[in-house]
Amino acid sequence: MSTPIRIGLIGTGRVGQVHARSVAAIDDAELTWVCDPFVEGARALAARHGGRVTADAGDVFAADDVDAVIIASPTPTHVALIAAALDAGVPALCEKPIDLDIDKVDTLRARAAASTVPFALGFNRRFDPHFAALHRRVVEGDIGRLEQLAITSRDPAPQAKEYVESSGGIFRDMTIHDLDMARFFVPDIVEVTARGANQFDAAARELRDYDAVQLILRGAGDELITITNSRHSAYGYDQRLEAFGDRGLLQVGNVGPDVVRGYFERSVEAAGPYHSFFVERYVDAYRLELVEFLKAVRGETSTSPGFEDGRAALVLANAGQEAARTGASVRVDLSA
Amino acid sequence: MSTPIRIGLIGTGRVGQVHARSVAAIDDAELTWVCDPFVEGARALAARHGGRVTADAGDVFAADDVDAVIIASPTPTHVALIAAALDAGVPALCEKPIDLDIDKVDTLRARAAASTVPFALGFNRRFDPHFAALHRRVVEGDIGRLEQLAITSRDPAPQAKEYVESSGGIFRDMTIHDLDMARFFVPDIVEVTARGANQFDAAARELRDYDAVQLILRGAGDELITITNSRHSAYGYDQRLEAFGDRGLLQVGNVGPDVVRGYFERSVEAAGPYHSFFVERYVDAYRLELVEFLKAVRGETSTSPGFEDGRAALVLANAGQEAARTGASVRVDLSA
Amino acid sequence: MSTPIRIGLIGTGRVGQVHARSVAAIDDAELTWVCDPFVEGARALAARHGGRVTADAGDVFAADDVDAVIIASPTPTHVALIAAALDAGVPALCEKPIDLDIDKVDTLRARAAASTVPFALGFNRRFDPHFAALHRRVVEGDIGRLEQLAITSRDPAPQAKEYVESSGGIFRDMTIHDLDMARFFVPDIVEVTARGANQFDAAARELRDYDAVQLILRGAGDELITITNSRHSAYGYDQRLEAFGDRGLLQVGNVGPDVVRGYFERSVEAAGPYHSFFVERYVDAYRLELVEFLKAVRGETSTSPGFEDGRAALVLANAGQEAARTGASVRVDLSA
Amino acid sequence: MSTPIRIGLIGTGRVGQVHARSVAAIDDAELTWVCDPFVEGARALAARHGGRVTADAGDVFAADDVDAVIIASPTPTHVALIAAALDAGVPALCEKPIDLDIDKVDTLRARAAASTVPFALGFNRRFDPHFAALHRRVVEGDIGRLEQLAITSRDPAPQAKEYVESSGGIFRDMTIHDLDMARFFVPDIVEVTARGANQFDAAARELRDYDAVQLILRGAGDELITITNSRHSAYGYDQRLEAFGDRGLLQVGNVGPDVVRGYFERSVEAAGPYHSFFVERYVDAYRLELVEFLKAVRGETSTSPGFEDGRAALVLANAGQEAARTGASVRVDLSA
Repeated sequence: MSTPIRIGLIGTGRVGQVHARSVAAIDDAELTWVCDPFVEGARALAARHGGRVTADAGDVFAADDVDAVIIASPTPTHVALIAAALDAGVPALCEKPIDLDIDKVDTLRARAAASTVPFALGFNRRFDPHFAALHRRVVEGDIGRLEQLAITSRDPAPQAKEYVESSGGIFRDMTIHDLDMARFFVPDIVEVTARGANQFDAAARELRDYDAVQLILRGAGDELITITNSRHSAYGYDQRLEAFGDRGLLQVGNVGPDVVRGYFERSVEAAGPYHSFFVERYVDAYRLELVEFLKAVRGETSTSPGFEDGRAALVLANAGQEAARTGASVRVDLSA
Repeated sequence: MSTPIRIGLIGTGRVGQVHARSVAAIDDAELTWVCDPFVEGARALAARHGGRVTADAGDVFAADDVDAVIIASPTPTHVALIAAALDAGVPALCEKPIDLDIDKVDTLRARAAASTVPFALGFNRRFDPHFAALHRRVVEGDIGRLEQLAITSRDPAPQAKEYVESSGGIFRDMTIHDLDMARFFVPDIVEVTARGANQFDAAARELRDYDAVQLILRGAGDELITITNSRHSAYGYDQRLEAFGDRGLLQVGNVGPDVVRGYFERSVEAAGPYHSFFVERYVDAYRLELVEFLKAVRGETSTSPGFEDGRAALVLANAGQEAARTGASVRVDLSA
Repeated sequence: MSTPIRIGLIGTGRVGQVHARSVAAIDDAELTWVCDPFVEGARALAARHGGRVTADAGDVFAADDVDAVIIASPTPTHVALIAAALDAGVPALCEKPIDLDIDKVDTLRARAAASTVPFALGFNRRFDPHFAALHRRVVEGDIGRLEQLAITSRDPAPQAKEYVESSGGIFRDMTIHDLDMARFFVPDIVEVTARGANQFDAAARELRDYDAVQLILRGAGDELITITNSRHSAYGYDQRLEAFGDRGLLQVGNVGPDVVRGYFERSVEAAGPYHSFFVERYVDAYRLELVEFLKAVRGETSTSPGFEDGRAALVLANAGQEAARTGASVRVDLSA
Repeated sequence: MSTPIRIGLIGTGRVGQVHARSVAAIDDAELTWVCDPFVEGARALAARHGGRVTADAGDVFAADDVDAVIIASPTPTHVALIAAALDAGVPALCEKPIDLDIDKVDTLRARAAASTVPFALGFNRRFDPHFAALHRRVVEGDIGRLEQLAITSRDPAPQAKEYVESSGGIFRDMTIHDLDMARFFVPDIVEVTARGANQFDAAARELRDYDAVQLILRGAGDELITITNSRHSAYGYDQRLEAFGDRGLLQVGNVGPDVVRGYFERSVEAAGPYHSFFVERYVDAYRLELVEFLKAVRGETSTSPGFEDGRAALVLANAGQEAARTGASVRVDLSA
């Protein structure tokens, strides 16, 4: 067995716990530090998966038994923690978004670009086996030139009002994943068109946010990409993708825990239910994201998506919000 | 428009009505005679679709405006009517079975073989667009050499006890269709193995018949064929086929009136319900069967399946019944 | 048999031929007149399906053996022919669009509104058994309140340049069908957003038209509707629909001539190919559209979609074209 | 973290390696001993997954750091190793079959029945998430009373002739899994009917074995069960199941590494390929089987399937072979 990579985990909320389970499932990685200001959470997680406990992230960066960190703490802490990782020269895998404020993101941009230490941004859906397989086939030319992309993404139920108050709204907390998925296929997005609606969620209306949005993105090669979002879905977590090219179409539908189909008086060929939310749906994606990150830590590959991808998704989310408010398409230049 | 073929229909029960509707839907065919001893039935059908009415089939064979007959009367009348058609030199499409008694069938065998007038036996499933497309691909070599065939056939609900009393039992009234389907792919069946069960239908038990049977047929090329039957099916009419060869598998599943799929809290990708029974499921098959028969009447093709196919299916049904009763496989020689 | 409705067919091109075959397949309708200035086309069609031949539509409206007309002639002739039908008090089923020029359409608007004679506009997709079944379930409340609708529509291959030169472009010759489909579910559309692209078709580029478009429509109830169009599709005619509501999702996928699925070394569960184009895909829709029209002619129902639906689709197509050119959403008021 | 269960692995061939990977993926289990007379194999596996190495299984049973053993050595060693485990009072998970000779199996029968130490027989398919989910729904009554079961199982390619020479033939090395699957649903099988064929594999023919078999089993409640086997499959590993009851049907189809579907000119909705063989298809089943076994080792549950299930499958395989040779159904009494 090769020497395990020693990991410090910062943040022990829902996503931090997912990462901890991924570390446990990977042979050549081990948890050595668990950090959370809510120290009880850190203790509970360490009791299950190992590691020393601290409330202070500084301890993690100072430790001599940490080869890499996973940043899964609340968004407002990300910029400072990324800065600390860059300062300490510690490889980091950071949950999205970098920040909700593009100006704050840009304070790190030059340093991140100059750094040679692996930095990965947690757009885990790129590592989902299904989306990754579809992407691979597109890259290999199965459908010829990519012309249209359709991304459908619906959460099972609206987030709590408190969450949305601090999340930056649907474009920045939800659509942002789909914007990165769009860029997985068409990195250079040049135009964003968007419409939003208030269909069912009183809290969203109060916050002047939307509960459903539709976007049209244009790529530099005149590709057209649609994103369909809703804050609710009666049939579980809806995560689908269609890539259309001049030689064919590839499609990823939804996934559930088993492939049993039922045939009854009123309905036939019925599957499901699907996975209920991202923790179940993307368990493999989180694990494979970490596997790829560990390869980069070992120097075998470079990380992707990285800092610029995190920034680009935020720029597009901001453009989406503006387009939805004004009704006019917004031009963007991601390289500026 | 070419001159329509003038058709005399004998028998106006459920299947006779299906044939009458097929004639109406075909441009170059018209109903000129409708015959049923229950003359009210004949009148009602003629009022909808045209034709002169009689209670006596002799009138139909004697008429000078009949180019072909469809025999859809009760089974016990088939042998005499086929004989009449052979005598009169009138092309005939006759519903299966020829008779329940192989000895009676054999009284016609030599004459049928000697006749050059088109005679078609109504195993309409061979003309179903889905089964026919699968068959065509097998013939074209898509799956290489055919090795295994699986036929699943379940009726929505048991027949009335009175029906089974005169139908000859499940092997002769139901399995016989699947036996012909087997022979569509593997004409030369050499061995029949069968097991029957009494699972739910008290009437079948009383009649010493089965409500569910499973057969294994062996073809002359060592092909293995299974037939799965049940007298009931909660999810509608179950009519499926799988052909397995050394290069692949082809499959026909069930069919319904539309392709809508529903996604709900407890089930997703749900279709259905399927067509409820043969009148709906095989409406195209009945029509295309008739189209092919009319081509033969015009001398453009020869008919298939014909008399020998009707006889072979009965021989196999009898063998199935014997095998189910004794537990021993039965050798058959269809050419004898 | 009830007295057949006597039909005069004006126009014997591809769609005129489809209608003639529908008439032949319907028991209680017959073709009595066939009209085309290209009189050879009319003669050929009449030889197959019956009817007297003329080059002058005036003969059809003047005939005493015409109960209804089908207008399937080129678009520029529609307004005059509709006017003639209104004048003569003859029920008419007219192919879309009424005209490419909204001003010309509006010259008929008041007369059409005042008329009590059945007038049907040929948006046949509303009568497709699959879309109609989905629509029925939405109306019955299966998915609760309709919130999002996704319409995907791709033609197999670009139209000839000559066609597009006179068709009014992709929004008016292709998207218009999808706009009517949107209105089938959400009649009151209040806003149109659209983007177009030039991805592959040099002719479209020359004509300053698009070969791919994406639209977002907003309904009066804040519903969001997407339309995805492309002028080509490697996998055949792509005609799909998804309706999303607060209680579930309903979906219609593509349809082919049979349900055979193949399992081979490199791919499994493979169906297809799909129907190649609208003549195959919508054969049932054309027939059922005619059946409904004939009911209206008999006074049993009223027709739908009608004149106002034809006008609304054109208004939305024009709005789509404007939105695609300017990048700004366009407000519409279909009742104005 | 709870104290890991310390496992001794006996046998480091293909299946032994699968078990070693399962141990590595389970948090609370660790490999402490690896045993194989081919000591290089043991060393290679221990280098990857840990554990001390020995060529002598006696060392494993004598060790004080072994809580349980996994027996994955060749079949002829199973009886002695099971005896050793029973003697030592060490919980054991043993690969199927117990032995090819029912008399040898029966030498252990009384001791196994008397033992209170956990013993699990490696019919891992019962733990496959898909088959297990279907089974759970049958037990919960989803389809009412189970009446028919259809098990389809085809290997991707024939085994080497050397393998079949010592495997006991298709009934004992391949069908035996399906016989256990049948008993998962209908434990009390009372009758076996079988036919075999020689369709493509010269080696099978030479060994007087079959390359394709079909079985019909009857349960004590008059259930009918079919098993369809072939030694090859062009489209990958074919592992399917259908359970039919008076209220519906449940089905598990094949599974592949991703759910991508492709739409191209000649085929649409194409998935695949499927998993190529059991190592990929049943990776979860092997892991979950081990998880259940470890629960039994901890005293939380009892193991299933166990010794009697291993014996029953062999009795049925022997009956199948006899039935295939004689053409007569064979009665069995599994409790005798």
